[in-house]
Amino acid sequence: MANTQGKIITCKAAVAWGPKEPLVIQDICVDPPQKMEVRVKILYSSICHTDLGAWNGVNEAERAFPRILGHEAVGMVESVGEGVKDVKEGDYVIPIFNGECCECRVCKKEESNLCERYHVDPMKRVMVSDGGTRFSTTTTKEGGLSKSQPIYHFLNTSTFTEYTVLDSACVVKIDPNAPLKHMSLLSCGVSTGVGAVWNIAKVKEGTTTAVFGLGSVGLAVAEGARARGASRIIGVDANPSKFETGKLMGVTDFINPKDLTKSTHKIIQDITRGGVDYSFECTGNVDVLREAFLSTHTGWGSTVLVGIYPTPRTLPLHPMEFFDGRTITGSVFGGFKPKSQLPNFVQQCMKGVVKLEPFITNELPFEKINDAFQLLRDGKSLRCLLQISKFLKK
Amino acid sequence: MANTQGKIITCKAAVAWGPKEPLVIQDICVDPPQKMEVRVKILYSSICHTDLGAWNGVNEAERAFPRILGHEAVGMVESVGEGVKDVKEGDYVIPIFNGECCECRVCKKEESNLCERYHVDPMKRVMVSDGGTRFSTTTTKEGGLSKSQPIYHFLNTSTFTEYTVLDSACVVKIDPNAPLKHMSLLSCGVSTGVGAVWNIAKVKEGTTTAVFGLGSVGLAVAEGARARGASRIIGVDANPSKFETGKLMGVTDFINPKDLTKSTHKIIQDITRGGVDYSFECTGNVDVLREAFLSTHTGWGSTVLVGIYPTPRTLPLHPMEFFDGRTITGSVFGGFKPKSQLPNFVQQCMKGVVKLEPFITNELPFEKINDAFQLLRDGKSLRCLLQISKFLKK
Ligand SMILES: [Zn+2]
Ligand SMILES: [Zn+2]
Ligand SMILES: [Zn+2]
Ligand SMILES: [Zn+2]
Repeated sequence: MANTQGKIITCKAAVAWGPKEPLVIQDICVDPPQKMEVRVKILYSSICHTDLGAWNGVNEAERAFPRILGHEAVGMVESVGEGVKDVKEGDYVIPIFNGECCECRVCKKEESNLCERYHVDPMKRVMVSDGGTRFSTTTTKEGGLSKSQPIYHFLNTSTFTEYTVLDSACVVKIDPNAPLKHMSLLSCGVSTGVGAVWNIAKVKEGTTTAVFGLGSVGLAVAEGARARGASRIIGVDANPSKFETGKLMGVTDFINPKDLTKSTHKIIQDITRGGVDYSFECTGNVDVLREAFLSTHTGWGSTVLVGIYPTPRTLPLHPMEFFDGRTITGSVFGGFKPKSQLPNFVQQCMKGVVKLEPFITNELPFEKINDAFQLLRDGKSLRCLLQISKFLKK
Repeated sequence: MANTQGKIITCKAAVAWGPKEPLVIQDICVDPPQKMEVRVKILYSSICHTDLGAWNGVNEAERAFPRILGHEAVGMVESVGEGVKDVKEGDYVIPIFNGECCECRVCKKEESNLCERYHVDPMKRVMVSDGGTRFSTTTTKEGGLSKSQPIYHFLNTSTFTEYTVLDSACVVKIDPNAPLKHMSLLSCGVSTGVGAVWNIAKVKEGTTTAVFGLGSVGLAVAEGARARGASRIIGVDANPSKFETGKLMGVTDFINPKDLTKSTHKIIQDITRGGVDYSFECTGNVDVLREAFLSTHTGWGSTVLVGIYPTPRTLPLHPMEFFDGRTITGSVFGGFKPKSQLPNFVQQCMKGVVKLEPFITNELPFEKINDAFQLLRDGKSLRCLLQISKFLKK
């Protein structure tokens, strides 16, 4: 049993104090896990655009500071609270922003991964059980550090810290032999992209696909389509440098909308005899969404929304356009039920069905987290992996 | 062999000469069927809102006069053109506005009923084979009537005439023992509604549904859901008189939006523990569409668009709303592949799985067609059946 069990842990965390303010690496207090909670030592964490969005504070209603961001990571269980059965001290785990309680009405249905209690919620900033936080700033008092101001949680996870506390519904145990650094990618981006292909579109062998936006998630879509045997994977991006990376993930054709004299969907219809079977919108731009929709074949074309749309604009589609037999679907976390389905996805990755190496373009120590944010803002990294804690693998 | 085979037939038709002008019952010439065409004696025809729309001439681009409207009917083959194999003289048939050639790439795929050559097209007004019409006005000349001005076709069918010519792809042979009057309903409205439930939403036993708009198609949706064992069928309509008819088609709960102090979707969410499994939008109003969308349960709710939307307004839905796991689908002719699937639907109707009698609320002779239009415009009929030709059943 960890000698820290049941005690407050003081550790380093990167705290966001306000919109666009550099994160501050500082000591914080992390409370012990309560009933059905798990305290995890974070080993590696990567950065995703959703972290950037929360840090920018674009959406006023979602703002909460001070806060510990981060939701893509891999770690080791330090201790568990009362009632936690499926993980124990020493287990390797990944945190999941879209949890699975395994007991609610939705968790018991096959159709959805939006658990009634732990589904993703950008407004949420405290723990479910008591509405409190497990993080606080420290004050130096007589006899050492003690708790001071509460620090908010983020997306059921908060991984930019040496220790975090999560609801056990948001923790997935992984094979201890899995390559740990790569597993961080399965916490969000890669699972979202590959899941959109495997679980939502259900891409079949020999079919054609188009991917709009070749960031990490778009490239994960391409890699998922390649793994499923898509005969053609058309990558669309205004940045030609994305094309080289795309080739590693199975992209067969590249379209740069800036080079075109007609619309992207017309070109795609021309080169695919009427349109692709599946398109994936990963840019978060509603005009691109329309292009993605129209680039699919009438009758069976399926568009999966993967991007995040910060705009107030509604869908630029006319209802009659749905009568052509094209559909749109959205999904969270690629439709994966994390506890039920992710362990198998881990196995697939270990077998090389999906390649993870190309997604990690940079590695930095925890202290350089603000540099890592800058790399992502500049579009210079797919995933920058931060080493959060030093550790020895057992 | 019919003694009219290969000859021009002169018969009565109801010709639309201009937007909102009363139809004129007059003699017309009907050419013999060309290659892969079929000439059909129409026995009964019913009237659908799409006929009203074309008659009103709302959509300028779709206007074409003089024209023979009508697309819901049942008839008997008079003669067939070269190459027609699946129907012959004397067969009972129903015309279908959304044909099936059985040979194109789409027809060979399971996923879609939008045949590349004969899918519904409101702009189309002539025959596929030669771009000509088979109808013309008559002029009295020496020796009798002769052809004069061409009259346009409508929706691959044109059934407000004693004889019509259709592409054989748009003709479905039916069981000669089927109740003929009822079969007219399968040409459009009832198939569209029942098919939306059976083929598109694929409603399962014990699930909950909501139907927005209780016209013929909405009631066919309810009847289709009842036949599939839906546990709850919520009918939404601003006209309380629709509720009595609805009960005959399995509607279990009625909501009149005019009686509510909160939005329809909130009420439906309240009474169904979070929303229905399926909703069907049959009004053609985009604001109602939004209510229908939100009235389904997050995670798996499915909305099927059945109405026709004459508005220029786009979907009042934000892309992020699709991330709640709700989907929208449109469909033409309820997703039925007419030649492949309708004969089986006819059998289901003959067995009483779907009841057709309540849909025929009025019957009138052909000469009263303008009165029949008025009944539909006034919302006083579901389907008014016109007896087009006198006939003796063999
Ligand atoms: Zn993410
Ligand atoms: Zn749950
Ligand atoms: Zn076809
Ligand atoms: Zn119709």
